Amino acid sequence: MKRYLILAEGRSDDPHYGKTARGVLKYGAEPVVAILDSARAGETYDGIPIVGSVNDALCFNPTTALVGVATQGGRFPPAWRELLKSCIAKGLDLENGLHEFVSDDAELSELAARHRVELRDLRKPPADLDVPTGENLQLDTRIVLTVGSDCAIGKMTVSLELDRAARKRGFSSQFVPTGQTGIAIAGWGIAVDAVVSDFIAGATERLVVEGYRRGGTDVLFVEGQGSIVHPAYSGVTMGLIHGSAPHLYVLCHLAETTEIEGYPGHPLPSLTELVETHERLSLPIRTARVACVALNTRFLGEAEARAAIEAAAAETGLPADDPVRFGPEKLLDTVVQRRL
Amino acid sequence: MKRYLILAEGRSDDPHYGKTARGVLKYGAEPVVAILDSARAGETYDGIPIVGSVNDALCFNPTTALVGVATQGGRFPPAWRELLKSCIAKGLDLENGLHEFVSDDAELSELAARHRVELRDLRKPPADLDVPTGENLQLDTRIVLTVGSDCAIGKMTVSLELDRAARKRGFSSQFVPTGQTGIAIAGWGIAVDAVVSDFIAGATERLVVEGYRRGGTDVLFVEGQGSIVHPAYSGVTMGLIHGSAPHLYVLCHLAETTEIEGYPGHPLPSLTELVETHERLSLPIRTARVACVALNTRFLGEAEARAAIEAAAAETGLPADDPVRFGPEKLLDTVVQRRL
Repeated sequence: MKRYLILAEGRSDDPHYGKTARGVLKYGAEPVVAILDSARAGETYDGIPIVGSVNDALCFNPTTALVGVATQGGRFPPAWRELLKSCIAKGLDLENGLHEFVSDDAELSELAARHRVELRDLRKPPADLDVPTGENLQLDTRIVLTVGSDCAIGKMTVSLELDRAARKRGFSSQFVPTGQTGIAIAGWGIAVDAVVSDFIAGATERLVVEGYRRGGTDVLFVEGQGSIVHPAYSGVTMGLIHGSAPHLYVLCHLAETTEIEGYPGHPLPSLTELVETHERLSLPIRTARVACVALNTRFLGEAEARAAIEAAAAETGLPADDPVRFGPEKLLDTVVQRRL
Repeated sequence: MKRYLILAEGRSDDPHYGKTARGVLKYGAEPVVAILDSARAGETYDGIPIVGSVNDALCFNPTTALVGVATQGGRFPPAWRELLKSCIAKGLDLENGLHEFVSDDAELSELAARHRVELRDLRKPPADLDVPTGENLQLDTRIVLTVGSDCAIGKMTVSLELDRAARKRGFSSQFVPTGQTGIAIAGWGIAVDAVVSDFIAGATERLVVEGYRRGGTDVLFVEGQGSIVHPAYSGVTMGLIHGSAPHLYVLCHLAETTEIEGYPGHPLPSLTELVETHERLSLPIRTARVACVALNTRFLGEAEARAAIEAAAAETGLPADDPVRFGPEKLLDTVVQRRL
């Protein structure tokens, strides 16, 4: 049984940090026992103690340190090397979701061997990837991909909520993890943003096939990545769209945002334009439709949230809701009842 | 001075082979002295002798063996290992454009060290890639990206023809190589289909910045890759679009084709749809327009070719031509005269 210490040193104000921490906390099978960020030591986060050092974390008996941040470019902040060495020296396994692999680092590998701990790089792709074979088009299930206007706005969470709700209703459903946090939560998957770019669609095909084999014979909720309008990550999104061959999209949007986060001057298209663009980009052989809009209203009061949801529904002519705030049932209906 | 032996053993009927061979022959700075394919030994290809073995090639004094094929998945056919070892043992440097890297192979590396030859993997990406910084939007030049309906239909050739014609007219122009053949021809570049998929756009930005620094201060002709409607490679195409931040597209199409090559049942959209989709996908901050249609008419007689070009122009309302067959001047006009 794993017990996670989430490493967030100097980064617990980063929105990506919240994604990993909240994701593993809320949807993961294994408990999070502490979070490490010396700047906020002594506080708590969703009831989990924040500690200032690996030593301070040890009284909570963690087994595994999880790198719980995302950095631009996916490399370790220089100061983290000592932190990682300290975790290894204290006997903790290391799970890392950055593009920089700890298992490729000679010093860390040597230290890990000496202390008999495991280094797991969640983003390290399988060695035998290839292009799609067409098997993604032959699965007898309903494939639902979350897409959205930007990164880190809740696509993974929406997929997880819909999967959980579908299972509760008795559907054979699977969440299909395509990124490091999804992999940490589900315990399997491929980080498609880390594969050789010729193989994005091929890796994604492999994931939907695997999700089907794992029991997603009624419905597969594929974790979306990036955004088709994102100046850095749109290639990943595009490969994910063609590789997962969805029947339906759930369009995610963070209410009130009008620009790509971190890219000032890059406006977001309207929801209607996003609907049209995604439908146009689906494979002619598997035309996908947007089933509904999942609006993330966490920065709004309740009345404003309900108004924003109504506005999104009115603009697009599609059912809309905030499935985290108001429950996933309404959006799940649109997904499972839609005639394909 | 390099003298190329192009390795095409068992593959000289592959359309990708033609791309490398013809590309390096016609546009490269270094001569091709022989082509190796035992099934066609004794024939010639565009005046270049085809030989049956490395030994037979030696009388043409090659310095460098170039892997001149593209394989699905980018791996070496098993029988090729002996061929590569034979090249190395005869003192030839090796240039390889497959995803499988010869410089990572212990046996080949050891052999290369012993024979003092170099192993160059054209698709091996730089180690320090990252996401775009926005510099792609600040270059004081005209960025022209070739896009198209499928792979291997002439996007690279069209970019090379337009670059060459622009230079002849006195423009400061650069061809920006984004794939293994372009790199073999130009002697620099990054194979964007081989980078970690989060960094496709970042790698492409780096290439246009480099093209500008190399003198492309009037116009940059960026080599396109794949197709936005290709079920395997669309992610690469999408990242290339956003990373190169083009002002203009040249839309390439192989006349008379209606399906993705090698993917039966995957229809090609109409040229008009392709124009609309590409214009819609450009960054809102850098809206790109399709300047013209480059039609590859090599499988048509001359009268049919002219009719197909007229039909493409009539359908899209854009200037159209086959720049390889009838010269690049007409399409170059549309690119350099277009108001941005």
